[in-house]
Amino acid sequence: MEHETDDLLPEGLEDRLPREAAAATRAMRSVLGAMDAHGYDRVRPPLIEFEQSLSQRMQGVSTRRMVRFTDPASLRTLALRSDMTVQVGRISATSLAGAPRPLRLCYAGEVALLRADQLAPERQRLQMGAELIGSDSVAAASEIVRVALDALEQAGARAISVDFTLPDIVDVLAAEALPLKAEYVADVRRELDTKDAGGLAAIPGGDAYLPLLYATGPFGEAIEHLAELDAGGALASRIAGLREVASGIRERARLTLDPSERHGFEYQSWFGFTLYAENGRGALGRGGSYAIVGKDEPAMGFSLYLDQLLDVLDEPAEEANKLFCPVGHDAERAAALRAEGWRTVAALSDSDDARALGCTHRLNGGAVEQL
Amino acid sequence: MEHETDDLLPEGLEDRLPREAAAATRAMRSVLGAMDAHGYDRVRPPLIEFEQSLSQRMQGVSTRRMVRFTDPASLRTLALRSDMTVQVGRISATSLAGAPRPLRLCYAGEVALLRADQLAPERQRLQMGAELIGSDSVAAASEIVRVALDALEQAGARAISVDFTLPDIVDVLAAEALPLKAEYVADVRRELDTKDAGGLAAIPGGDAYLPLLYATGPFGEAIEHLAELDAGGALASRIAGLREVASGIRERARLTLDPSERHGFEYQSWFGFTLYAENGRGALGRGGSYAIVGKDEPAMGFSLYLDQLLDVLDEPAEEANKLFCPVGHDAERAAALRAEGWRTVAALSDSDDARALGCTHRLNGGAVEQL
Repeated sequence: MEHETDDLLPEGLEDRLPREAAAATRAMRSVLGAMDAHGYDRVRPPLIEFEQSLSQRMQGVSTRRMVRFTDPASLRTLALRSDMTVQVGRISATSLAGAPRPLRLCYAGEVALLRADQLAPERQRLQMGAELIGSDSVAAASEIVRVALDALEQAGARAISVDFTLPDIVDVLAAEALPLKAEYVADVRRELDTKDAGGLAAIPGGDAYLPLLYATGPFGEAIEHLAELDAGGALASRIAGLREVASGIRERARLTLDPSERHGFEYQSWFGFTLYAENGRGALGRGGSYAIVGKDEPAMGFSLYLDQLLDVLDEPAEEANKLFCPVGHDAERAAALRAEGWRTVAALSDSDDARALGCTHRLNGGAVEQL
Repeated sequence: MEHETDDLLPEGLEDRLPREAAAATRAMRSVLGAMDAHGYDRVRPPLIEFEQSLSQRMQGVSTRRMVRFTDPASLRTLALRSDMTVQVGRISATSLAGAPRPLRLCYAGEVALLRADQLAPERQRLQMGAELIGSDSVAAASEIVRVALDALEQAGARAISVDFTLPDIVDVLAAEALPLKAEYVADVRRELDTKDAGGLAAIPGGDAYLPLLYATGPFGEAIEHLAELDAGGALASRIAGLREVASGIRERARLTLDPSERHGFEYQSWFGFTLYAENGRGALGRGGSYAIVGKDEPAMGFSLYLDQLLDVLDEPAEEANKLFCPVGHDAERAAALRAEGWRTVAALSDSDDARALGCTHRLNGGAVEQL
């Protein structure tokens, strides 16, 4: 990546110079194109909202990391968006409350954080995603996972993995199958998060949850383990749902299951998934089922982050058709060549150097000559 | 335009809902495409920079309207960008200081203001533009004006007008042809700005500038007036430059001249222009010659604002090819149709209503049927 090396810019903020900016534009258009092809209409919410409006929709997730300032017009606190999903939720619950369901919306835009964290040093990210509002059914889950795969594939990602999870699994089991006092639910979740068998066994009723630690790995085997564990059938509909979603994409991605994984799924309900690709340093994105805040309307969606996606894409081929047009060239001919897809670079003076300017061809009279 | 009507969002900030968001994306891609075709490489600077770095490059223009906050990492003041031109200038003077000249860069992105003003109530604008760095010659001016016209035409703007100005005209005349004490230069500029003949005549030496008020209007006549006024030839190179720029675009736009117009040209040097189109409420954009702050390198560029551009474009035709795919449809056939350019909408259940969801066609077996 071409990045600033000095301290011209604040920590966690960077310029994308021409090569990387072009790759970013290409990848973003591929992702938007895939979502558009599945009938998702793009919306463009603003960079800035009332802090209260954003934070109440974020259900407490990382609102402390938002950039805040006082609005001189309203004297209320404004914030820079740190997540566009909540903005799409707001639109679906207000301006588009009357639009027919299921409502398909997509977005792509910059989000910003006041503070970086160690795992994600960037303070500005380009977030892209799709939200299917009005359903959290298995059919909706299948569609969202397929749209996410199309988006990644069309951007050029290869060897994609999908890791499924059941974000509310502990709540479901605690209520129905593996009795747990309410006061211990959070402890069990925490020990499962850190995959700490000893800690889990030390919680009253926690040892019943130990098998969840082993129902992980390649999807086919892990889902069998999970089904065995679910003797009472509390998870039956979830397991059937996962099997159905998986069956539709088995040939397109490597599938794994980590049923108690909750990191990044703080507000998801029954279904969640994380996307990875070959050579990626981390997840490319996440998705799952949730409820729109305020309306309690079911929804399903996913988000991708452009930097993570660019990391797994091949370097683009060098530009092939950049045409130098010398002083006094035929402007109409140059315009016709642009209409055919050529990029032209017009000389401003006789001293302009075609090769130094990155040109591959030169206009000589009406003819295009290779340099 | 589809806009929020209640107070969900702060004053001057709006959602672009699907129809307007699609128009915005189309117009932005057309503008970027035109700039790219002329060899301008896109750069993507960050939303946030050090306030000091932005403001010193803005030469005092409207920095008071920037959103500012303290960086918890550096404890320095950061600001949201209110103009991307200065960011491109920074890149050209730092990361791309060693790139061959002329350097052609373009950009498109959101800029934000803390306060709206009466003429421009928006606090967020999508700015797009091109900068030609390393020259402020007549050839550079001609190219920049032509790229701007291509961008507007390809976005669909019609009946475009270009209003030329000579931002430094008073300085040039005061130094060479129409002597003016240094203390009165600002007064003369101010009276010319307000086109106040009485005020101008009341300034010692100001009456000599009265003819500038009449060298305005359609380009052909106004440039003749200006040439007559310029008996000593102080403006000769500027007048010849304007004539040359104008001759290249005479058939593409209505041309006017207002040689002492300075509004929006606070940091331009010899050449400036404002772009208008039929039905527009105001300018679509501006451009001209300037010097990169710090390096004092000559440059030429223009900026357009998306909202102003969208205002002059025709409403897009209704979407034509949205294909409803019922439950149990052939997924491979649907994928093949998407690859052909269809947008598909997959039913999640038998109760999904193709017409309510805006579909124009329906997949029946392998066949596409009109609804």
